[in-house]
Amino acid sequence: MGRITARRPVVRIRLGVGETRRPDTLAVEEPLEIRVGGAPLVVTMRTPGSDVELAAGFLVSEGVISRGDQFRSAIHCGGPGTGGPLAGTAENTYNVLDVALAAGVPAPSSDLTRNFYTTSSCGLCGKASIEAVETVSAYDVATDDVRVDAATLVRFPELLRADQTVFDKTGGLHAAALFDAVTGELLVLREDVGRHNAVDKVVGWAVLNDRLPLRGTVLQVSGRASFELVQKAVMAGIPMLAAVSAPSSLAVELAEASGLTLVGFLRGDAMNVYSRADRITVPQPAGV
Amino acid sequence: MGRITARRPVVRIRLGVGETRRPDTLAVEEPLEIRVGGAPLVVTMRTPGSDVELAAGFLVSEGVISRGDQFRSAIHCGGPGTGGPLAGTAENTYNVLDVALAAGVPAPSSDLTRNFYTTSSCGLCGKASIEAVETVSAYDVATDDVRVDAATLVRFPELLRADQTVFDKTGGLHAAALFDAVTGELLVLREDVGRHNAVDKVVGWAVLNDRLPLRGTVLQVSGRASFELVQKAVMAGIPMLAAVSAPSSLAVELAEASGLTLVGFLRGDAMNVYSRADRITVPQPAGV
Repeated sequence: MGRITARRPVVRIRLGVGETRRPDTLAVEEPLEIRVGGAPLVVTMRTPGSDVELAAGFLVSEGVISRGDQFRSAIHCGGPGTGGPLAGTAENTYNVLDVALAAGVPAPSSDLTRNFYTTSSCGLCGKASIEAVETVSAYDVATDDVRVDAATLVRFPELLRADQTVFDKTGGLHAAALFDAVTGELLVLREDVGRHNAVDKVVGWAVLNDRLPLRGTVLQVSGRASFELVQKAVMAGIPMLAAVSAPSSLAVELAEASGLTLVGFLRGDAMNVYSRADRITVPQPAGV
Repeated sequence: MGRITARRPVVRIRLGVGETRRPDTLAVEEPLEIRVGGAPLVVTMRTPGSDVELAAGFLVSEGVISRGDQFRSAIHCGGPGTGGPLAGTAENTYNVLDVALAAGVPAPSSDLTRNFYTTSSCGLCGKASIEAVETVSAYDVATDDVRVDAATLVRFPELLRADQTVFDKTGGLHAAALFDAVTGELLVLREDVGRHNAVDKVVGWAVLNDRLPLRGTVLQVSGRASFELVQKAVMAGIPMLAAVSAPSSLAVELAEASGLTLVGFLRGDAMNVYSRADRITVPQPAGV
């Protein structure tokens, strides 16, 4: 299995002090090729670890699977041209993962990007991307009537940060975590050099544990909220996405269209709610 | 032309204070399909603006072009199936850009990812990705003998931040800027929801102005340094990449193999130098 961190020598320079040589711990980044039934589907740069979850979550995000029983197995295999498993041989880089889908599950198109970005209606535009997510998604997050207390929500960023063990060492990883919206319990947390990978690993954990749709949960992410992250939440049936930083315009538009609650700038005791604010209950100030 | 920011209503919640409704400014995110000679090449989620630079820089990053005269023209066009320009008609979303290469420049393969991630030597691994960049790149950054003063370098993050006009309004954009390594002059700055797009826009500006290879320059980015960003710097002949946050393991390995100076955690008056530290001159502390 690949390593998650690596030690490297570094020259530390401080003006007025000079330079010193010392070791530094880095987050590992390595390519992963995801194959389905032997056919290459995508290459993503990721932090090794939880590769099967990453593949399963990616397939949920792309609308290929929506239940755990649609994912039969996955195995790290060798280089191009070698379809079979080579686990344990010298050729295995653990950077190629071949997924077997259950019988009857259609294999994905090799041109995945066009599923979500292009339709004949407008060529290529944000509206078409949003409609594609709504068409492809197996779940409807708009009907999830969960409520979350604002006082519960504001604790999520520090709970996320407290469990980011690899970030502590490297300063170089994004994180995504799933919380129970009512109890505030942390269900799962994953880290990765790519924030989309961190979310795919969380969703993959859930689908492999038969927990989709993820009704009644909040997905907390360490950075910004893009269209892609809202898409991944909707595809997994997650009704609420909370980000420490800003959302993009298209993230807000997709959240509105899908009925997902999108929270941004969740910092300290405050937040911005961009859509479906009705799910967030705000305690009355004392003395009112 | 697409807008760069959008105004949306937002519910602002602060514990103990309550909630207020107010407008918020968001960074716009919209898909862009880049075509070459009418053939779809890639779809990227980007902030509209500088689309021609984005496409030109992307083609440099992928090794399709390395000089301005290889890029003949680009035009926003309509939806799928309509090869021709439709500027000014209702169908034009300004999200499809068709590039015409100069005569004799080979069209890119439709399977771009495999250029850099896969070789027959090891199947798929970081080492193969690094070798691919070295094979494809038209420029050799290792031979650039530029020197930069550490006191000049530490000013770049604040100069970058000072010119991030859209970030000021939205808090939601990555930035990349090119500086002259000797004079410290800011040559160009671009912002985007995707950090890879911000770098592509900078490189695209340079190639369209016949400035490649970018010898004697420093590429400053607002976030972390991934393999992909180092790849883009190497492909454009930029000898030094400086990031405010952490690099990944593979970013450091590619920088070492290519002879690029990689700086991380460039904050305040200090920095970590991960490769080719010989290019950075450190002033002796006073009184020594």
